Amino acid sequence: MSIRLPQGYRFAGVACGLKASGKKDIALVVSDMPAVAAGVYTQNQVVAAPVLWCRERTPSSEIRAVVVNSGNANACTGSQGMADAQRMCELVAQAVNCSKEQVLVMSTGVIGRLLDMRKLESGIEHAAQQLESSSPKFLDAADGILTTDQGRKIVSRTLELGGKEIGLAGMAKGAGMIGPNMATMLCCILTDARLEADQAHRILTTVADLSFNNISVEGHTSTNDTMLLLANGAAAEAPLSGPDEAYFTEQLTELCIELAKQIPADGEGAKHLIEVRVVGASCNADARIIAKTVAGSNLVKTAIYGNDPNWGRIVSAAGYAGPFVDVTQLQLRLNGIALYDQGEPLPFDAKQASASLRDHDVAVVELVVGKGEGNCTHWTSDLTVEYVRFNSEYTT
Amino acid sequence: MSIRLPQGYRFAGVACGLKASGKKDIALVVSDMPAVAAGVYTQNQVVAAPVLWCRERTPSSEIRAVVVNSGNANACTGSQGMADAQRMCELVAQAVNCSKEQVLVMSTGVIGRLLDMRKLESGIEHAAQQLESSSPKFLDAADGILTTDQGRKIVSRTLELGGKEIGLAGMAKGAGMIGPNMATMLCCILTDARLEADQAHRILTTVADLSFNNISVEGHTSTNDTMLLLANGAAAEAPLSGPDEAYFTEQLTELCIELAKQIPADGEGAKHLIEVRVVGASCNADARIIAKTVAGSNLVKTAIYGNDPNWGRIVSAAGYAGPFVDVTQLQLRLNGIALYDQGEPLPFDAKQASASLRDHDVAVVELVVGKGEGNCTHWTSDLTVEYVRFNSEYTT
Repeated sequence: MSIRLPQGYRFAGVACGLKASGKKDIALVVSDMPAVAAGVYTQNQVVAAPVLWCRERTPSSEIRAVVVNSGNANACTGSQGMADAQRMCELVAQAVNCSKEQVLVMSTGVIGRLLDMRKLESGIEHAAQQLESSSPKFLDAADGILTTDQGRKIVSRTLELGGKEIGLAGMAKGAGMIGPNMATMLCCILTDARLEADQAHRILTTVADLSFNNISVEGHTSTNDTMLLLANGAAAEAPLSGPDEAYFTEQLTELCIELAKQIPADGEGAKHLIEVRVVGASCNADARIIAKTVAGSNLVKTAIYGNDPNWGRIVSAAGYAGPFVDVTQLQLRLNGIALYDQGEPLPFDAKQASASLRDHDVAVVELVVGKGEGNCTHWTSDLTVEYVRFNSEYTT
Repeated sequence: MSIRLPQGYRFAGVACGLKASGKKDIALVVSDMPAVAAGVYTQNQVVAAPVLWCRERTPSSEIRAVVVNSGNANACTGSQGMADAQRMCELVAQAVNCSKEQVLVMSTGVIGRLLDMRKLESGIEHAAQQLESSSPKFLDAADGILTTDQGRKIVSRTLELGGKEIGLAGMAKGAGMIGPNMATMLCCILTDARLEADQAHRILTTVADLSFNNISVEGHTSTNDTMLLLANGAAAEAPLSGPDEAYFTEQLTELCIELAKQIPADGEGAKHLIEVRVVGASCNADARIIAKTVAGSNLVKTAIYGNDPNWGRIVSAAGYAGPFVDVTQLQLRLNGIALYDQGEPLPFDAKQASASLRDHDVAVVELVVGKGEGNCTHWTSDLTVEYVRFNSEYTT
């Protein structure tokens, strides 16, 4: 597999023994020149040490590297946790010849345990020796950030902007917003476009809101969620402006939706990706709350798992979400089959509806909640016996 | 089993064939004299026909009967559903010789299907013939409102008030706030105390807030939730006042907490009742949101199911609940074992903590979130493989 990578970045992914499985647990991304970096972070008040480190340093114009470890979230680890996050950045800084303030760090895994710094020291040193600007090393890095994920999560594309070819590549991890062996959605997007720091932050905030902020597995916001955008300008001399910025933002949004959907599709134990489309709400914010509430209902998620068109659960979830729902206008379609219209149930073939759920990996829930302009699409996974089994058997 | 029932009420519970299982599916409660009645109802915007009927008629001083059917929620049933709810009240009114406006109705079961009124007509007639003021008939009625419940849910006690013996008895149902065969928490409390209608409403609102509003199974607010309080004054000539009202409210609160806890303890597939005690929040409302969020986390619920003291999930849930949490003051105890204190993890014996969860039906989560006065206790059930199985196999 060959990927068109943005210019000026090198990658490595290695195993240092943080994971009992022996799988890769360190990822290192280095920009050959100082890059603009923007970040968006968990809204949890209980935040992990690496989030505190990054939050203080972005947006920035001076970032040289991002180091990630999986297998341990370095969250709820107190003052030792802060010292360890800083030490990780120091080790990378020594290896790539920059200052520790030019290094960002992300961690993912179990909460409340101290990092094994001895393993990390040798692991980071080893990763630094492996750095290369090549597809295999990019894939190694993408593997190094995974925890309970079944598969790696990557995207890439190229754009024509102002006569230049601009590269975009991203990696993400996550199979639960918080899960048994990890505690995090992490995402790192790289581009060789040239952006100003504030501009990068503005673009990233817009894009996150339309992509990663619209996914969930079980809705448990983690202590470590981090999404970074690095732009090193290796492919362009001038910063993006005007229509180019709009086009770049639009392309980046598409790319991030593609990447974000890989997370609930790979949700722990998931059998279906559920796409909840809400239209007709008073505003987009209302539509988002309704879509998220329907997607967050265990009864909706178990019905989809069981291929059961038990549509009363969907309509009633919309009804308790909070924002105004015009019950005289309510319409529901499931995989294109009309089930409810203007407050009255419609006759439908339950066996056919069930077969449609069984035969598709994606279940599409379409809700009209009124005549407003607000709309939102949220992606989640179904709730399965395997999810419960998996999440009930972990730390002991 | 003999229960001290409040005076002036008769009861019946029969099977009319709404449930495929042949179990009782109609309950009838009749007051020999017009009773004061207060109700609190679901906050869902999508409300079932019987809720619309009752909401218009409470508080009242003229209620003679409450009829309940299980097996069908009469929700999302449009105009036919409203006509059916009214018809149920008419049938009861004919049988007990009052007007249909003096009858309240509750329904619970699957959403979106029309009631089989032919079965209900003969069932209500049959129930009216069975009415008696006796413990066996009270238990029949309590059985008639159940759906996926494993066991009946009842409470009773007597109070001395102003030299009179006052009786209190209650019945409830619910194994999910919404479940596969039903859609509802229903509760009916009866007393022979004398209350004014507004007073009954004030007392019920206070009591509901401290009992049924603090329980959940999966947090899906139903279309049918209804809690009724009937006070027929058969044991007292004068309405309650002053300190007697305070004492009555306190006793009723205790009784309702006892009844409410039976619901998550019998939650679909539940192995543990989880008691989440939050103290130190800025106010009670904040404490309630934090307790409810911790109780609502699938990751907390699956960990308890697995007897796994995976405490990072609890702390992180408190952190994303929304209200201010003082992370420098955060303390967590699980079944009395201290796990986290002032932002630092504590050493603990994981095997011992796991054994404690395994050996107790109730898991007690104690969270200190700051130095405020706000506190709240919320009861929920764990999330088990059986819950998912049960809820994925229903309408088809």
